[in-house]
Amino acid sequence: MTQTVDSARQQPGVGKATRRQDGSDKITGRTRYAGDLPFPGLLHARLVLSPYAHARILNIDTAAALALPGVVAVFTSKNLGMANANSPSRSQAPLAQNEVYWCGHPVAVVIGETEAAAEDGVAAVDVDYEPLPVVVDPLAALLPSSPPARSRSEEEVSTIAGGGAHAAVSEGDSDEEEDKEELSQNVSDKVHIRSGDIEAGLREADVVIERTYTTSFVHQSYLEPQSITVVPSPSGHQLTAWPSTQAMLGARSDISRALNLAERQVRVESVPIGGAFGGKFGLSEPLGAAVAYKLRKPVRLVYTRQEDLLAGNPAPQSVITLKLGAKRDGTLVAMQGKMIFDSGAYPGASAGLGGHILTSTYRCPNIDLRCYEVLTNKVSVGAYRAPNAPQSTFALESAVGELCQALQMDSIEFRKKNALKEGDATLNPHSPQWPRIGIIDCLEEIEKHPLWAERGAQKAVPAELEGWKIGVGVAVGGWPGGTEPAAAACRLESDGSITLVVGSVDLTGSDTSLALIASDVLGVSSDTVEVAHGNTDTMPYSGGTGGSKTIYTMGAAVLSAARDAREQILKVASDMLEASVDDLEIEDGNVAVRGVPGKSVTLRQIAEASMRFAGQFEPIYGRGRSANSTTSPMYAAHIAKVAVDPATGEVRVLDYVAAQDVGRAINPAEVEGQIYGGVTQGIGWALLEGFVYDEEGQMLTSTFMDYAVPHSEDVPNITPILVEIPAPLGPYGAKGVGEPPVVPVGAAIANAIDDAVGARVTQLPIRPERLFNALNGKQ
Amino acid sequence: MTQTVDSARQQPGVGKATRRQDGSDKITGRTRYAGDLPFPGLLHARLVLSPYAHARILNIDTAAALALPGVVAVFTSKNLGMANANSPSRSQAPLAQNEVYWCGHPVAVVIGETEAAAEDGVAAVDVDYEPLPVVVDPLAALLPSSPPARSRSEEEVSTIAGGGAHAAVSEGDSDEEEDKEELSQNVSDKVHIRSGDIEAGLREADVVIERTYTTSFVHQSYLEPQSITVVPSPSGHQLTAWPSTQAMLGARSDISRALNLAERQVRVESVPIGGAFGGKFGLSEPLGAAVAYKLRKPVRLVYTRQEDLLAGNPAPQSVITLKLGAKRDGTLVAMQGKMIFDSGAYPGASAGLGGHILTSTYRCPNIDLRCYEVLTNKVSVGAYRAPNAPQSTFALESAVGELCQALQMDSIEFRKKNALKEGDATLNPHSPQWPRIGIIDCLEEIEKHPLWAERGAQKAVPAELEGWKIGVGVAVGGWPGGTEPAAAACRLESDGSITLVVGSVDLTGSDTSLALIASDVLGVSSDTVEVAHGNTDTMPYSGGTGGSKTIYTMGAAVLSAARDAREQILKVASDMLEASVDDLEIEDGNVAVRGVPGKSVTLRQIAEASMRFAGQFEPIYGRGRSANSTTSPMYAAHIAKVAVDPATGEVRVLDYVAAQDVGRAINPAEVEGQIYGGVTQGIGWALLEGFVYDEEGQMLTSTFMDYAVPHSEDVPNITPILVEIPAPLGPYGAKGVGEPPVVPVGAAIANAIDDAVGARVTQLPIRPERLFNALNGKQ
Repeated sequence: MTQTVDSARQQPGVGKATRRQDGSDKITGRTRYAGDLPFPGLLHARLVLSPYAHARILNIDTAAALALPGVVAVFTSKNLGMANANSPSRSQAPLAQNEVYWCGHPVAVVIGETEAAAEDGVAAVDVDYEPLPVVVDPLAALLPSSPPARSRSEEEVSTIAGGGAHAAVSEGDSDEEEDKEELSQNVSDKVHIRSGDIEAGLREADVVIERTYTTSFVHQSYLEPQSITVVPSPSGHQLTAWPSTQAMLGARSDISRALNLAERQVRVESVPIGGAFGGKFGLSEPLGAAVAYKLRKPVRLVYTRQEDLLAGNPAPQSVITLKLGAKRDGTLVAMQGKMIFDSGAYPGASAGLGGHILTSTYRCPNIDLRCYEVLTNKVSVGAYRAPNAPQSTFALESAVGELCQALQMDSIEFRKKNALKEGDATLNPHSPQWPRIGIIDCLEEIEKHPLWAERGAQKAVPAELEGWKIGVGVAVGGWPGGTEPAAAACRLESDGSITLVVGSVDLTGSDTSLALIASDVLGVSSDTVEVAHGNTDTMPYSGGTGGSKTIYTMGAAVLSAARDAREQILKVASDMLEASVDDLEIEDGNVAVRGVPGKSVTLRQIAEASMRFAGQFEPIYGRGRSANSTTSPMYAAHIAKVAVDPATGEVRVLDYVAAQDVGRAINPAEVEGQIYGGVTQGIGWALLEGFVYDEEGQMLTSTFMDYAVPHSEDVPNITPILVEIPAPLGPYGAKGVGEPPVVPVGAAIANAIDDAVGARVTQLPIRPERLFNALNGKQ
Repeated sequence: MTQTVDSARQQPGVGKATRRQDGSDKITGRTRYAGDLPFPGLLHARLVLSPYAHARILNIDTAAALALPGVVAVFTSKNLGMANANSPSRSQAPLAQNEVYWCGHPVAVVIGETEAAAEDGVAAVDVDYEPLPVVVDPLAALLPSSPPARSRSEEEVSTIAGGGAHAAVSEGDSDEEEDKEELSQNVSDKVHIRSGDIEAGLREADVVIERTYTTSFVHQSYLEPQSITVVPSPSGHQLTAWPSTQAMLGARSDISRALNLAERQVRVESVPIGGAFGGKFGLSEPLGAAVAYKLRKPVRLVYTRQEDLLAGNPAPQSVITLKLGAKRDGTLVAMQGKMIFDSGAYPGASAGLGGHILTSTYRCPNIDLRCYEVLTNKVSVGAYRAPNAPQSTFALESAVGELCQALQMDSIEFRKKNALKEGDATLNPHSPQWPRIGIIDCLEEIEKHPLWAERGAQKAVPAELEGWKIGVGVAVGGWPGGTEPAAAACRLESDGSITLVVGSVDLTGSDTSLALIASDVLGVSSDTVEVAHGNTDTMPYSGGTGGSKTIYTMGAAVLSAARDAREQILKVASDMLEASVDDLEIEDGNVAVRGVPGKSVTLRQIAEASMRFAGQFEPIYGRGRSANSTTSPMYAAHIAKVAVDPATGEVRVLDYVAAQDVGRAINPAEVEGQIYGGVTQGIGWALLEGFVYDEEGQMLTSTFMDYAVPHSEDVPNITPILVEIPAPLGPYGAKGVGEPPVVPVGAAIANAIDDAVGARVTQLPIRPERLFNALNGKQ
């Protein structure tokens, strides 16, 4: 572990591996999630999903369903009364209007007294469809001759995602060629990223590598499916919702907009969440709330696993053609690419973000990246841990791997030579230079690790893998990070303990890290710091827990709130002890006068003096706010060691090292946990996961029997190495840590496979048949 | 209305009569109270009450009850597992241990699947009692020869209320006589208040009046009875409680102490409360919580009206012998008294507070007041609107009425001459001088009112009351006020509206007044200010809503929080408008540059800029704290006009004027509402209400058929006059307003009766038979 911050300073709490506050209830099954809440008369909502990938709805006959015992209601987009039922937004208009866009598109929702009654009702809803032409392949969808994924009026075209292709953003100057490009009507966004002179760059290059890389739709596979329970007030004028969401205020806005209510008429309550990874930002809340609002009854909407696979919001599929050029000395001089992100039935794949990721690892003077978002008749996409970065980085770092081979240059040497570092130019005019970032530091860490330093010895094949080949590969990857203003409160309790009040949803132990920050400032054990979540009526502002920004932004607000509380505590103690604030210190819940043994007052005594009838001191109630003006870009460098069976194409990951610049590990146990989890999901991307569709747009992987997430036997020993290059605005220098660990895994494994057997697979996941074909020249 | 603050200053919001935010739901029946909350599997608790006023419990046989269908459990003090089941605290040990102390003492609690099943179970619980001697009359209880109201070991005696009589507090020097006084073991507290030389004072007096005044137990008669619902977490380690309480954090402490839990294991949720008047401070919470904790099931405990009368905590009965001496010129020179407060079965009547009230109206150089709290076999007492003040003031102001007659001095003249005013000495060494108070100001207001100024004409008897006599009486009274530290938060919402977050329980429109304060500071309509109540996990600190201190203390915290939010708003607006903060003003939700038309930004725009992904401004989140160092003593002067039927002793109140120093009326509509309500309850004290016991301690008034609260026909036109002498620490100068209006009513009516028919009744309530007897010389 590289300690780049002053490790001499003793910080009780921060930096100490600490058990998660939510852990015990979760592992013992006591936690109650959004779908587990008991209400008398609770009704159950189930979805009627389209069996067609593209069809016109001619008629929906609900009579038979309504006649069934226990079926309370059936709603379609026509009779649910949502305020924006004709909106182009998927979540605002969750039920198909006149047309279904994918196999899994909800066309109706059935409400039953029981889950089983609702399920029977779903089977009895009779929908007449007229099938329409289907487009499944994003390359086909991109052709001007493609049938439209959605039949649209001109008006609708212009309302899709900021105007569809007509509103394409171009960074750099537009050129004539671009203006002449004939685009399919399925293109919903286009971004052109350029700098330098790509043609000159390619001419300058001694070596050029060009390949096309593809990835599939990958699902977040959270343990808890999309869930929400909504209870109307007796008057029906207010709703209280318990959604499984990453963003409480976001859910409130989504619901109030969908029902045309004032925000204060909706209260979102905090409820534990069973995983999200970006996939829980507002998909099901408006629909669940609309049903409860319409019926004035408590309603629960919990997706089945199959519904979640068919109608969730997975990561987009990608097709990336990338050309890299370098000089003989290893200097990267050209990067040209065409990046296609398949967004499924609705826009939202953020094609430009994919291009941005490509420009954020290496210095390259000449860049030309055309990024397209295209619509197809598949489920539409959402955010998944480092959106677009696993796809883009798989392309970039696979190509870099080949480039190094062609240059006969050490993989880490090449990367260290070209990696972006402090002071390098960015493509962002608002922040023209890169800050101090950790790519090279992470590379230096893995370079020293035996898995790389002794990679010759590593390739010895153990007896039980006789006939297999061993390989070692590296890759780097990162995430730009996000910012969002945040606020928090810090309260002293009557028993001398501390409560933090925040609105951030607790994911992957973020609460525990916030508690560590407060414990550190206040000189108390983190066990005595409780993190409480207000509802949306009472919580301090928080954006969603996502974008690897919770500790970076909410942590900064908590730090400020705790400092405010500390000042208040010292002020009271100063009065009580008749000592100057400057002479006081807090340790173990005790405020003492430095150098005067026995002259002290406990936090409990301060609480008693400030929180009682006729008390003469103001209650301790700290408030913190943050608005970090810049992000904290974060990077990781990975080594994968794999074994390949050349006879079958089977791959096993034998060992794994992940170095990551985390700024400062507030809770090293959780930071490491994020790395374990991210790498594991990366192994899913690399070897196992991906939606498979037939040519009619039927999904063939709609259960966990068909969609393969990594099992424990698929996950090797993972060694995290924490690099700590402090972020100026992060609390204690902390950066985000959640997203980077998934980013380089696909390329690290692909590079290791190539190292083992000299074959390169450019399609994720690298299933045995793909590798077998590559080994046999059939890719 | 006397405007002593600068009325030229326009304050949007503050001072404007404003509709209550909670009103609409309450009058339309939509409000859900603590007993109305639906939970699946909710169990119902009902109490087994003792039919004896004093008895030993020989045996409790629960077998028959447990055998009934729907009875889930029966608990006694032996098997409920409360941590302090042997404590001398009534609420910590709510079920009788080996002895019952009053008729109504809970001995067991029966839990049923339905209320009816629990009720059947109560009837089937078989308790063997051995009756013990009963003491009902406080004067009898005070005799050294009295049987004990509670059989106690020596140890128990010493644990009652800070040590019982042995720990009696004496203000001033002790004297030998006092030490020799032989006290009954039923005396649980004794306070001696002295100043000057009482014997010299009485010698100096030209006129001396001595009388004994009595009052009865009076019940708060809130609409919603004592209620609580408690739900344990799945693990059983946490409890969530919805109590009908005035103090959320107090309820949390009571429950956690009773169950030996950490405070954070208990969460008290805010729930609307249907009246309290001091009676809802922790009576039923520990019992309700203990049952839910023991059973690990949701439990609801709601008293019936009869249970609330038999086992609530009404105001203490009093017997006050008061001797007043004045010189011929009307100067009060001596006040001697013996004040007995009957506390029922447990200590808590705060006898010394009664004495303190007596010394807080008039200047008197020679005071000698002996205050006793005595235990009897009756229900024990709690706080009720201005505790002990109606009793003490009835005595004082009745005696002053007689003194004025004896001196042949105008009632208001005498009062103005002797009333305490700024700079007069107090008996409190920590605050030796009276601040600016409003007794004389209020007297001057009523003196001008036609009901007094034209009282000769007022006495004309209307035709429909032929044979009746009309009288007009005055009285003053007050309340010392309380302080308690408080905190609040003030948040800007995404729609530009404002949310205040407080922990104070909303009683009698306090939320609406808090909203007015924030609206005033922030330049927005009070309609756009929502008051949100956190639960005890998340709320800023608040003591109980009581003691007429909510606006005085929480209002100060809200004022500070709103000012903090205003500063934050102006800071953001200053950046957005590129203008100095000093040049900005907020009006109607718009921040504008003074004198630059059109250069402005709305609160909604500020919200949007500060609460979104990548936002560059900190969210608006104001925090306010207060710890008012002194109280704001508050006074009222009342005029009652009554008609008396000399043939029957029947009294009707025909008209009523109540002038009150409110400091500053934040919401005049609510301040007037408090006066209407307080005077109405005072009419109950004066003419109707009072527990009646037989000599065995059986309560004869345990239903609203027997216990008479005022009906609408009993309430006359009430004219409030608001006097505004600002309190230095109150927000906008506001003082408490809730308690004073009930205080002078009994004496004002007694004085009016005397004025009408020349007969004085010294017992409250003045029922017709008492007045009839007085008229006929039989008192």
